[in-house]
Amino acid sequence: MLIVQKYGGTSVADTKRIKAVARRVVETAKNGNKVVVVVSAMAGETDKLINLAHKVSSTPKEREMDMLLSSGERITAALTAIAIEELGHKAIALTGRQMGIITDTVHTKAKIEKITGEKAKKALDEGYVIVVAGFQGITEDDDVTTLGRGGSDLSAVAIASALDADLCEIYTDVDGVYTTDPNIVPEAKKLDKISFEEMLELASLGAKVLQTRSVEFAMKYKMPVVVRSSFNNNPGTLVTKEDKDMEKIMVAGITYDKNQGKITIMGVPDRPGIAAKLFKKIADADIVVDMIVQNVSSDGKATDISFTVPKTDCKKALELTNEILKELDAKGVTMRDDIAKVSIVGVGMRTHSGVAAMMFETLAKHGINIMAISTSEIKISCLIETKYTELAVRVLHETFGVGER
Amino acid sequence: MLIVQKYGGTSVADTKRIKAVARRVVETAKNGNKVVVVVSAMAGETDKLINLAHKVSSTPKEREMDMLLSSGERITAALTAIAIEELGHKAIALTGRQMGIITDTVHTKAKIEKITGEKAKKALDEGYVIVVAGFQGITEDDDVTTLGRGGSDLSAVAIASALDADLCEIYTDVDGVYTTDPNIVPEAKKLDKISFEEMLELASLGAKVLQTRSVEFAMKYKMPVVVRSSFNNNPGTLVTKEDKDMEKIMVAGITYDKNQGKITIMGVPDRPGIAAKLFKKIADADIVVDMIVQNVSSDGKATDISFTVPKTDCKKALELTNEILKELDAKGVTMRDDIAKVSIVGVGMRTHSGVAAMMFETLAKHGINIMAISTSEIKISCLIETKYTELAVRVLHETFGVGER
Repeated sequence: MLIVQKYGGTSVADTKRIKAVARRVVETAKNGNKVVVVVSAMAGETDKLINLAHKVSSTPKEREMDMLLSSGERITAALTAIAIEELGHKAIALTGRQMGIITDTVHTKAKIEKITGEKAKKALDEGYVIVVAGFQGITEDDDVTTLGRGGSDLSAVAIASALDADLCEIYTDVDGVYTTDPNIVPEAKKLDKISFEEMLELASLGAKVLQTRSVEFAMKYKMPVVVRSSFNNNPGTLVTKEDKDMEKIMVAGITYDKNQGKITIMGVPDRPGIAAKLFKKIADADIVVDMIVQNVSSDGKATDISFTVPKTDCKKALELTNEILKELDAKGVTMRDDIAKVSIVGVGMRTHSGVAAMMFETLAKHGINIMAISTSEIKISCLIETKYTELAVRVLHETFGVGER
Repeated sequence: MLIVQKYGGTSVADTKRIKAVARRVVETAKNGNKVVVVVSAMAGETDKLINLAHKVSSTPKEREMDMLLSSGERITAALTAIAIEELGHKAIALTGRQMGIITDTVHTKAKIEKITGEKAKKALDEGYVIVVAGFQGITEDDDVTTLGRGGSDLSAVAIASALDADLCEIYTDVDGVYTTDPNIVPEAKKLDKISFEEMLELASLGAKVLQTRSVEFAMKYKMPVVVRSSFNNNPGTLVTKEDKDMEKIMVAGITYDKNQGKITIMGVPDRPGIAAKLFKKIADADIVVDMIVQNVSSDGKATDISFTVPKTDCKKALELTNEILKELDAKGVTMRDDIAKVSIVGVGMRTHSGVAAMMFETLAKHGINIMAISTSEIKISCLIETKYTELAVRVLHETFGVGER
């Protein structure tokens, strides 16, 4: 088998951990597999570099930030290859460029365009373990780029896909994907298996175990991904194509996100084009709007529009909204950031009816008011007051018997 | 003018120092110059990375060491470019590869083969300050290489030559090149000017202010180099072509080297081919022999051969010599490492006779025994006991009125 293994920052936090990674890699290779290893920067390294940059500039240039930050992964890649050789196995470290990871030119959050991988293919055939610096690529014009926070997950999945690997293993400091946050619900269970679609919803709803874009990529190219711990030998969670087993249960996981704020514009005239005008202004400022709720106006004249944005963009969004208040002919605007989004996710929703009703009932039964709702085919999200977050997660986990797959 | 400025590790030791470098660079640019900056790793960074590598392997692979170590200079280059932009001047950071520094494949001590510099030339024309990561290059096969300790000096001189710069400034933590070590002779003077040849002798004899290979390179391509401090605005020392002024004084500088050991083989038969056999064996072990002294044999039958090697290679050289003792038909071998080499350097020696005699007399007058002598056109070195080093340097400095140029 050709296996791509990605090790995150805590898995390569120091030389002791890097040696442990080397042992696992060599063991995998000795079991008859070809192995490509993708590594993150040592835990804390990236933040240290960002901190240095902010000491010399309040707005560091993005092209140079990428050159700076990509160094962290290069260091780990070199050290890991050295540690593997020390165990007597041939290993070669490759930078993103040497791996042939070509990206667009959007510095600090570049998109992978293609992966040539010539050097890696040749070295694999010659019996080398390949160690690739994650999180980075190169533009056609030869400039270093990085793929954004958590980008090493994406590097791993994209490399696995480009090399036509059999499996992509994501090593981290938790045992896999849980039905919900075990810090809130001690009964939370590790999932043995989850569909790409469910994982994608969980990732974008705030579960931090896999970066959203890497799940999208894995889903698109049908690359099976295993999330597991580098600190033990537990089997982890397999993220793969949906199968019939998965449909048997309604809800696979429950997630929450406390990092949003809600803006409400009151007394907006109920005319076509108003929402478009508002959200164009918000989008132009590169602020991502998540949920949008527009009340039906009772008198057909004026209505309220609420929307949520990341907490960090709240102030900016409020300013922008205030700016066009007059133009929209609206009465006023309010903002609150004591809100949380609680979501349930599961492909079983497609075949089980009444899931939404069960969710709303459960929340109501515990006196939790729902401020907004958004749904997709396999998820339902409710906006509630922050203080009820843990309670909501617990009672929903109980109601849906989550994870009994 | 096109000026290349190189800043060493202490000059970019922290973000405060990097900001100071940025101010100097911007000032140079505002005076109407095009500026290319070459930076070392922040002081201590390279040793930290070496230390990490030695924690995972006793014999780290050299190709991966180069990827590891080159990161230090990339980090400084990115930070310096960011700091320059913060001051409102356009700047772009380039890695050794992006600068087009092509080297041979000898990892950890690669030689520069050519510098293409296309990206830099274009950016210079567009008004950018270029910040290049020193100490590194890339092979034709796309692997990262490093140029050996002090390699950033070489990067700077080679880049200056490739871009046809008017001047190469080497910024360090001392004011320039001194007539001798000011720690030993408080009267030591900073030289305003010194010839390439003299600088080359001083550098290879132990003066650490400039890396030897960078001086060779500057001499070969006649690139004027100024050594000066980044901590003040003193004018520094100009290293340039020999001129008539320089001939007027006999000795430009005095240097010493305590890092050598002496091996003596006794009772070697006085036959052709003996020395060749011995020194081939030493050379095959990659040990560099410095001075060689063979006594004239009084009876025409047997003689003694002494030679010096770096202290770190002493034990190895002794072993090797012992191994072929029988083959050489010699009587025995001794080793001593309490020796030092004291040298006087000056192009004036070419026109002044009797310099060597003056040196020997001075040492004799102070009871310092000379164990070996080696000379070139512009330098005389004497091997003495270590304990006399400081005394020898002081009295020679006095005798030759060094630095009165």
